[in-house]
Amino acid sequence: MKLFAGCELVYDVPAPAPVVFMLRPRSGAGQWVISEEYQIEPGVPVIEYTDSYGNLCQRLMTPEGRFRIQITLVVETADEIDVAPGAPFVPVQDLPDDTLQFLLPSRYCQSDRLGPLAADITANATPGYDQVEAIRNWIQSHVIYQYGTSDSSTSAIETAEKRIGVCRDFAHLGISLCRSLNIPARMVVGYLHNLKPMDLHAWFEAFVDGRWYTFDATQKEPRGNRIVVAYGRDAADVALATQFGEMQLQEMKVWVEEKL
Amino acid sequence: MKLFAGCELVYDVPAPAPVVFMLRPRSGAGQWVISEEYQIEPGVPVIEYTDSYGNLCQRLMTPEGRFRIQITLVVETADEIDVAPGAPFVPVQDLPDDTLQFLLPSRYCQSDRLGPLAADITANATPGYDQVEAIRNWIQSHVIYQYGTSDSSTSAIETAEKRIGVCRDFAHLGISLCRSLNIPARMVVGYLHNLKPMDLHAWFEAFVDGRWYTFDATQKEPRGNRIVVAYGRDAADVALATQFGEMQLQEMKVWVEEKL
Amino acid sequence: MKLFAGCELVYDVPAPAPVVFMLRPRSGAGQWVISEEYQIEPGVPVIEYTDSYGNLCQRLMTPEGRFRIQITLVVETADEIDVAPGAPFVPVQDLPDDTLQFLLPSRYCQSDRLGPLAADITANATPGYDQVEAIRNWIQSHVIYQYGTSDSSTSAIETAEKRIGVCRDFAHLGISLCRSLNIPARMVVGYLHNLKPMDLHAWFEAFVDGRWYTFDATQKEPRGNRIVVAYGRDAADVALATQFGEMQLQEMKVWVEEKL
Amino acid sequence: MKLFAGCELVYDVPAPAPVVFMLRPRSGAGQWVISEEYQIEPGVPVIEYTDSYGNLCQRLMTPEGRFRIQITLVVETADEIDVAPGAPFVPVQDLPDDTLQFLLPSRYCQSDRLGPLAADITANATPGYDQVEAIRNWIQSHVIYQYGTSDSSTSAIETAEKRIGVCRDFAHLGISLCRSLNIPARMVVGYLHNLKPMDLHAWFEAFVDGRWYTFDATQKEPRGNRIVVAYGRDAADVALATQFGEMQLQEMKVWVEEKL
Repeated sequence: MKLFAGCELVYDVPAPAPVVFMLRPRSGAGQWVISEEYQIEPGVPVIEYTDSYGNLCQRLMTPEGRFRIQITLVVETADEIDVAPGAPFVPVQDLPDDTLQFLLPSRYCQSDRLGPLAADITANATPGYDQVEAIRNWIQSHVIYQYGTSDSSTSAIETAEKRIGVCRDFAHLGISLCRSLNIPARMVVGYLHNLKPMDLHAWFEAFVDGRWYTFDATQKEPRGNRIVVAYGRDAADVALATQFGEMQLQEMKVWVEEKL
Repeated sequence: MKLFAGCELVYDVPAPAPVVFMLRPRSGAGQWVISEEYQIEPGVPVIEYTDSYGNLCQRLMTPEGRFRIQITLVVETADEIDVAPGAPFVPVQDLPDDTLQFLLPSRYCQSDRLGPLAADITANATPGYDQVEAIRNWIQSHVIYQYGTSDSSTSAIETAEKRIGVCRDFAHLGISLCRSLNIPARMVVGYLHNLKPMDLHAWFEAFVDGRWYTFDATQKEPRGNRIVVAYGRDAADVALATQFGEMQLQEMKVWVEEKL
Repeated sequence: MKLFAGCELVYDVPAPAPVVFMLRPRSGAGQWVISEEYQIEPGVPVIEYTDSYGNLCQRLMTPEGRFRIQITLVVETADEIDVAPGAPFVPVQDLPDDTLQFLLPSRYCQSDRLGPLAADITANATPGYDQVEAIRNWIQSHVIYQYGTSDSSTSAIETAEKRIGVCRDFAHLGISLCRSLNIPARMVVGYLHNLKPMDLHAWFEAFVDGRWYTFDATQKEPRGNRIVVAYGRDAADVALATQFGEMQLQEMKVWVEEKL
Repeated sequence: MKLFAGCELVYDVPAPAPVVFMLRPRSGAGQWVISEEYQIEPGVPVIEYTDSYGNLCQRLMTPEGRFRIQITLVVETADEIDVAPGAPFVPVQDLPDDTLQFLLPSRYCQSDRLGPLAADITANATPGYDQVEAIRNWIQSHVIYQYGTSDSSTSAIETAEKRIGVCRDFAHLGISLCRSLNIPARMVVGYLHNLKPMDLHAWFEAFVDGRWYTFDATQKEPRGNRIVVAYGRDAADVALATQFGEMQLQEMKVWVEEKL
């Protein structure tokens, strides 16, 4: 489906501050970026660089006062995500070198401490895709989705205990449980068509049977029409805005519509 | 200046063939990509990757028949390029590691064989920026710009002999002469506002005094309002289309206008 | 000083298991690897790759039974580490792109939660080197060094609370406090001459005044003659052995002597 | 076989000059670097970095006078190289992204001009491994190996015409012919056991059937026990010493023996 998507962020900036945005998607598996428009008001110099995961990052100094940033996208996306029940686990010794980093624990994904829970959840699952699907399904049915119950310091261990959170917490828990089973897993941030309520979204990918598969523990069923903006180990790597000063987000709009 | 630029390429494809396009600029020093639109007709799957210089490359299979590709850009560019008469040569031992590759000879830039010419041209120049400017100026006044006098196999040695060519030949010669003086130099392809006649363009950058400076031997005076699309060692690295089959370019339009 | 250093690890392996070792130093600032010998018994195939930080990683399958690995190094090292009281803080907007990742929180360095402690410790310090030195000094005088008080899941928050740990905990706390002040900080693992008791060691580096400086909170005074083996965000990135199965470390010897 | 190999280079240096050496092998497919010793006399500071192909490069300033550099290696190598008659050609659209650069022409490998010769040589060969083997065999039987008949500016076109050269010319021609058939090919420099006369050596690798295979047009039969030191597009990328000043090589010894 051709999607018309984007977001608008309006900040109140008490004093000029550096910030790194990560709002620009690249074309890749399942998505072709047809057009993209990036507005910044007031205009300030921007330096763009690529991080170690290949994400495009935009560095700038927010000026004092009202600061508005808007990105508008048209992206051709796959209507369905691939599902592969029974797809096999890849033994660690056979994993590609660049997937190994996604086995390591990270700020919000303490996979080193969630092994027993992962073992419980996947006790009856075939190693590989079915383990990840069991994890995704367990989170979907055991963790309550509720805004305001977690914050930017909430990590997978807390979510495993409190069983409440938002999309990023669901993803962190899914990632941690996969890694504890030696399945590489990474965080994805982006857009999802028909997400309710509409917002920027986060989900995860797991590496089984030689490729990355998409999993979203906030949804009952597999759903396509996603736009990936950035990949990373967890939310620390892929914040849409990493602020190094005071900036208050005053308004935020997100839209993902079919482009007719 | 805010530029509205782009190009349209129409091919006749006798049989499906792989091709790699390099048409998508990234934001960087002196340019902020505000918007970008990429059309392909008929639509085919595209895989995008980043090459070792950081250029965005689009891989696809052209379908049989008429194939059209168009990219439309709005880019904020610097009105002036930086000039720095007297800026010093950087001794090789002080060059950043990643500039060293731009000292090596390459397909179209046989810098290992152009040392004597470079020495002649720069005999009276202070090492550094002034050497590069002497080279640029020498090419501008000694090489005739004429379409149809060179082709995709023409290299700097031939241009040094025949003293005739197009922008890519001017750039290759400039790059080769710089490298023979141990000044890192790289090829740039992109757009230039008010280029006459309008076309896709090529120029070069040289590394002096700790940074890259822009040089264009096809122009009498330094001119800004350039959009960089890709960097590389020479034209082999930064072809706008690297074809691996028969594809006849039937039409090509390029435009670079001020966006009001 | 020319150092003769190395380590010997002997494992008991109940069943073949994949493992990634990170034992091979590269030459770099302050160290020149003159010679290196790497023994593995019994011999098994090894695949070597470079991670995203440039560390050399060795992947292999440990065979069942006794498994021994030994690396022997001769390295010319700097006798002194550079110290730079008063060296200035680099504002985030001026940091090199590739240092930005070392501002982010990570598994063992929850810098997002240690800001108040860092502010207290550095209340009277000039921004930059002196802040890092105040942090290093505070840890050195407020945290007790004691084996067996922490484990592989201990992170900076716990060390800040319990004020006890080993070199890796000291480093994690130092890194976290620096990052909370927007000073890039990274973990280093390696060897230190005259460390008592001798062991593999961990310390940290902080980026001030345009370069990385070495800090070691386990030591009263700055000390040189260090061999860096690997860099990373924290211990998750730079484990000397990342095991993906049961392997019991039975013996471990480490030596760092002057090579006469 | 376990090989004891290395080389000693002695230069006469009229004035201090920067140089980049590429003498340090890394472990990889078919070779495990057990030990390595690197001597430099007189001692000078060395900075090591990794180029875009992953080769370890050593930058230094040679001091005036006699300068000696010696590297001594013990490497476990495969006794046989893999051969795969009939292994299929990989269509360009299916090649991994990072192999595409090895399809492009380069300084010494003008593949854009050698298509007709490649077509002749491989007229009866199955696309893929057999084409490369036909090329290798043709070079082996049609090009005369003779020292002193080529120099550092000799490229594949000249070798195709004159049909005489040394190992690097044989490799350049092989690489060019492969690339003209859309088979990725890269230059390798290193050591070969029992090479006669003993010297540093160069050969090439071609990518067919999903992996790189080794080809050596200087040898009648496939031979193993090779130590790869560096990879690149051609000799410009992988010179064992890239000099930026006057340095006369006075003595050179190379040895590759079985380590008992």
